[in-house]
Amino acid sequence: MARINENYLKLKAGYLFPEIGRRVREFSQANPKADIIRLGIGDVTEPLPPAIIKAMHGAVDEMAKRESFHGYGPEQGYDFLREAIVENDFKARGCDIAADEVFISDGSKCDTGNILDIFGLDNRVAVQDPVYPVYVDTNVMAGRTGAAEASGRYAGLVYLPCTAENGFTPELPQEKVDLIYLCSPNNPTGATLTKEALAKWVAFAKQNDAILLFDAAYEAYISDASLPHSIYEVAGARDVAIEFRSFSKNAGFTGTRCAYTVVPKSLTGTTASGERREIYPLWNRRHTTKFNGVSYPVQVGAAAAYSPEGKAQIRELVEFYLTNAKLLREGLVKAGFIVFGGVNAPYLWLRTPNGATSWDFFDRLLSEAHLVGTPGSGFGSCGEGYFRLSAFNSRKNVEETLNRLMKFGG
Amino acid sequence: MARINENYLKLKAGYLFPEIGRRVREFSQANPKADIIRLGIGDVTEPLPPAIIKAMHGAVDEMAKRESFHGYGPEQGYDFLREAIVENDFKARGCDIAADEVFISDGSKCDTGNILDIFGLDNRVAVQDPVYPVYVDTNVMAGRTGAAEASGRYAGLVYLPCTAENGFTPELPQEKVDLIYLCSPNNPTGATLTKEALAKWVAFAKQNDAILLFDAAYEAYISDASLPHSIYEVAGARDVAIEFRSFSKNAGFTGTRCAYTVVPKSLTGTTASGERREIYPLWNRRHTTKFNGVSYPVQVGAAAAYSPEGKAQIRELVEFYLTNAKLLREGLVKAGFIVFGGVNAPYLWLRTPNGATSWDFFDRLLSEAHLVGTPGSGFGSCGEGYFRLSAFNSRKNVEETLNRLMKFGG
Repeated sequence: MARINENYLKLKAGYLFPEIGRRVREFSQANPKADIIRLGIGDVTEPLPPAIIKAMHGAVDEMAKRESFHGYGPEQGYDFLREAIVENDFKARGCDIAADEVFISDGSKCDTGNILDIFGLDNRVAVQDPVYPVYVDTNVMAGRTGAAEASGRYAGLVYLPCTAENGFTPELPQEKVDLIYLCSPNNPTGATLTKEALAKWVAFAKQNDAILLFDAAYEAYISDASLPHSIYEVAGARDVAIEFRSFSKNAGFTGTRCAYTVVPKSLTGTTASGERREIYPLWNRRHTTKFNGVSYPVQVGAAAAYSPEGKAQIRELVEFYLTNAKLLREGLVKAGFIVFGGVNAPYLWLRTPNGATSWDFFDRLLSEAHLVGTPGSGFGSCGEGYFRLSAFNSRKNVEETLNRLMKFGG
Repeated sequence: MARINENYLKLKAGYLFPEIGRRVREFSQANPKADIIRLGIGDVTEPLPPAIIKAMHGAVDEMAKRESFHGYGPEQGYDFLREAIVENDFKARGCDIAADEVFISDGSKCDTGNILDIFGLDNRVAVQDPVYPVYVDTNVMAGRTGAAEASGRYAGLVYLPCTAENGFTPELPQEKVDLIYLCSPNNPTGATLTKEALAKWVAFAKQNDAILLFDAAYEAYISDASLPHSIYEVAGARDVAIEFRSFSKNAGFTGTRCAYTVVPKSLTGTTASGERREIYPLWNRRHTTKFNGVSYPVQVGAAAAYSPEGKAQIRELVEFYLTNAKLLREGLVKAGFIVFGGVNAPYLWLRTPNGATSWDFFDRLLSEAHLVGTPGSGFGSCGEGYFRLSAFNSRKNVEETLNRLMKFGG
């Protein structure tokens, strides 16, 4: 009899976004004239930069001729892209990363899930709370957790609370953990870890022989020059950290699909008998066996993000969203909200007014201001009493949002 | 301590293609003037059809304007593509498959590996021998096998021999199996299962509560009208089979990346306690949690494969490779080889002459005729004494190959 993977049955039904969709649908059926503005999902809204469009057209033309046609490429990605990444994202910031330590993929969501394949089931996993749900769900699916508890937490995972009280900076765990997810700039809180905070984690990982899974998908939004963009800016991080990066939120690739993962050759794990093994060949084997490379025109488009025009256009795109974030932040403060994030990140993280639950605030904001955001409790129990707004929107929508927020009040 | 997944240590090093590469490199260093023709890897050589190029340019232009920009799409794929697939690949052949049973992905290699996530580790897995190595390797990685044996086989897997003696048609296993991979038209043997043969497998799966993993990546090469293109042409297959399809070998998407998997809603598996569960929601959850959809311009390109012009151009492309296969087949027969496949498949499967081992024949063919193929033993122990040649090549190379084969002799 074909047996299912019963770990899937532990998953709580994809609760957050379907539930948001249901409530918005219900409201808009009852109020067909309401002009609803969506600030819920972290999806970009502006077109791809011209340099990328041009490069993709060129690559599509290459595919039209036998002499320049591209069939299977290297599963790990083309050298032209891996080298541009290393030059611009790492060497330029003093990080010692080689081109063959960069694995091109079709998304950080995939990578942060797939990376788990190469680790044993007996690792103890730590996540921030609130947290990007994919980290948790993929561990549940793989069988690294127990059942869901009433709080929504899963038995067996170690949750690191991130609240206003600790400045949304997770404290080092008191218990033994082996794999630690860190996301900075953070989704959903918008908080960014300082170099000192990251150095503490690198030291902890070294002491405990743990591995850091560092998600830097939002690094382009860092505007404070003192903040690190990569964990490899911390000395020694090469020995303890995997980093995830994406073209989704800087170059606008959410629908074009390109990302990458850095697995340094000096990173090691152990076998049950305590033998030390390199992680690199495991991931290389996983990537070449279960993946077949990213679409050639997409890789050419991603490489154009590193051309002089591409860089300038992407900077402009990021500045546009950061200005949205700034406008939202200022408007929210003016309207009386307590607000975090939105400076080095495209997300604003509000305290719900008067101690309202996240979902009560969601309902009030929808029915009274026709605005849709994301209830903080959907990201974990420490997100209760918070609310996420995304700066990915048109300026017009942002301005209209501000008008409504002023009337609505904090 | 971060523990690795030790199942990876059971894998034999990616032996086949690196070893071919090593031998070719060595030979060509020693013989720099030798004009080596490669018929080893199953990668297409001809450009993308004009209808697809045009559609992809249009989609890239859409990404350049805010009004037509596409961010995150549905993880399962756009309806325009899912519906075109159902109309053309299934309804047109009388198969009862709904659009929401089709999951668009970036490759069949990924899908055939990823599908394993939703099944328990205690399933007994059957594969054909010789076999596409990904089926085996991904089960080793997941922990569904024991160690590799001297023969190259892995303990715990059930191997179904496919040799000239049984017409390369696997016989039903005598022992209990739960997941069965079938590939038709077959890589590497080029054999295609008849409707009667498939019906036997569907009946077996029903009787044994097993699930068939049917890989039809090469269905476009079927030229015999009596042969089934989809397993769903067999009554009842909806209840026992998952089908994998790809745009790689028909539309030439090996470097463009698009494929799909069909998971019918009527397919079920069981829990350890014997409770029956639908497979569909598990795969849907896997696909939406660990994948983020295929690049929009690529999906638009794939959909153009179903336009009237696209269909005609793809037909022409497939006919081109099939003519290559026919020429190779006829030439090989004339040269005295015993040859299989190459009629409903782009692969030719030869008996090595005079009982030579696959690798001895590889070496002789390389050194004497400067031709590169794939040793059959690389696909499994039942491939020993066989050799694969691919019809994916230019006509010029095929003709030159024939000249050399005539001189070389079977």
